[in-house]
Amino acid sequence: MSTKKKIAYLGPPGTFCEEALDKFVKDIDQIEKVPCPTVVEVIKSVDRGEVDSGLVPLENSIEGLVNITQDILTFESEVKITGEVIIPVKHSLIGKKKMRLDKIKKVISHPHATAQCRNFLSTNLNGAEIIAANSTAEAVKILKNEDDDIAAIGTKIAAKIYDLQIIESDIEDNSDNKTRFVFLGNSLQQRTGKDKTTIVCFLKEDRPGSLYNILREFARRDINLTCLESRPAKKDLGDYVFIMDLDGHLHDKNIFEAIEALRKSVYLVKILGSYPKWIESNMK
Amino acid sequence: MSTKKKIAYLGPPGTFCEEALDKFVKDIDQIEKVPCPTVVEVIKSVDRGEVDSGLVPLENSIEGLVNITQDILTFESEVKITGEVIIPVKHSLIGKKKMRLDKIKKVISHPHATAQCRNFLSTNLNGAEIIAANSTAEAVKILKNEDDDIAAIGTKIAAKIYDLQIIESDIEDNSDNKTRFVFLGNSLQQRTGKDKTTIVCFLKEDRPGSLYNILREFARRDINLTCLESRPAKKDLGDYVFIMDLDGHLHDKNIFEAIEALRKSVYLVKILGSYPKWIESNMK
Repeated sequence: MSTKKKIAYLGPPGTFCEEALDKFVKDIDQIEKVPCPTVVEVIKSVDRGEVDSGLVPLENSIEGLVNITQDILTFESEVKITGEVIIPVKHSLIGKKKMRLDKIKKVISHPHATAQCRNFLSTNLNGAEIIAANSTAEAVKILKNEDDDIAAIGTKIAAKIYDLQIIESDIEDNSDNKTRFVFLGNSLQQRTGKDKTTIVCFLKEDRPGSLYNILREFARRDINLTCLESRPAKKDLGDYVFIMDLDGHLHDKNIFEAIEALRKSVYLVKILGSYPKWIESNMK
Repeated sequence: MSTKKKIAYLGPPGTFCEEALDKFVKDIDQIEKVPCPTVVEVIKSVDRGEVDSGLVPLENSIEGLVNITQDILTFESEVKITGEVIIPVKHSLIGKKKMRLDKIKKVISHPHATAQCRNFLSTNLNGAEIIAANSTAEAVKILKNEDDDIAAIGTKIAAKIYDLQIIESDIEDNSDNKTRFVFLGNSLQQRTGKDKTTIVCFLKEDRPGSLYNILREFARRDINLTCLESRPAKKDLGDYVFIMDLDGHLHDKNIFEAIEALRKSVYLVKILGSYPKWIESNMK
């Protein structure tokens, strides 16, 4: 019987999500990776207790619908964020064999990946037919059974999994592009001293100064906001919830007191998690 | 010689973007619709003066990479937002002929559209193969040349354009889902009295209270914020710009004074536009 920890992630094998998982987990042999077809399935499998942890994109993802991650965590789940991984978005042009770019007649990938490589494609592969896939990993997998004149845009890990060749690396237009993934679990993480807290504020009403009043509680306690986004509440585009990242842990006195103060003025504060901040040197 | 106004939009014909265009423009015969393959092409064709106006998704889009719209408007363009259209996201299951759901073996669409119809698909079309397309319009177009047992998820307008049948309407999981599109042009719109202003604030440094100080200028002047999002600045995920929507026109005294005050404390304020607020009854 296996005692390996199960970690669900947005599959199929070879996605950016799997790349993030491999970068974060030190002893990859000690875990069982469980690919799920959608972000929702990853989150729900943690909610149902079928896996020990899950990994999903939260910000600026290629394949995941990031709004869906935020909305499911906000409205339809009780899982907590237990960690984060930030990885650069690096696209490779992958083929069955190394070949000259002018021999490539078709390029297959997720529409977001082709959108992010538009300069490379219009400069080097102008005229090639652009074919869509459900993920970059699917694109690379499909390649196996196609003609030699088709290339895929995907990750290096996918090229390795399906035993294909990298024709060109780092073909993305913006080399600073990064994606943020979060780990999900069923318990709040311990304080490490270098933490981040993600919360959602549901507003009683949308009126001048309501967000200002929220932020006052943080500003007066010298708490830094590193990310803030308004998301439409479920019913109408006019009612908003705010998702924000705070510098610090829920168990830090200033964070806890700020949230207690908030609770007096907003409809609801939901804690999505306190977890160690991603630091580049965590990367293997 | 045609004197019709040219309006670029995110194509191909039959996208949600074209649906939004049709809903907004009263005399559709008086304009020339110019489909562009990407959001960037729409924006740049306005910048180059090749078209009179452009229409792109800004929030919660199916097909457009919304982050790209925000980032290009923020960092790489001088066009102004001149109007907005908000339309419900309605998906239809489309086939070559009306047929029973259990006869459908494959479903083709943009990955975001299939993601938004996951409940319908798992309940009614469990086991059907999900095939990706670059847009819902492309999915519907492809259908023409396929077998009868394939269906597409797309717009009603696309079904009409390609002379196909609606098998089932409104198959999206969340019926409250809406997408916001914006018109782009080269001049600031006149004040109508029911306006919205979109601005971008670039921060000198990311420190506690910096967003709070921005919002103070609006709160003390009784200006309502209807939308706020932090976006990573180009260089690092730690430096942010804030994109926000304000209730009112740049030429309203309180808005103008708030922005002048802001300019003293932040690195840069960029006005993306002042334009009439979308009102449901504007719809044809």
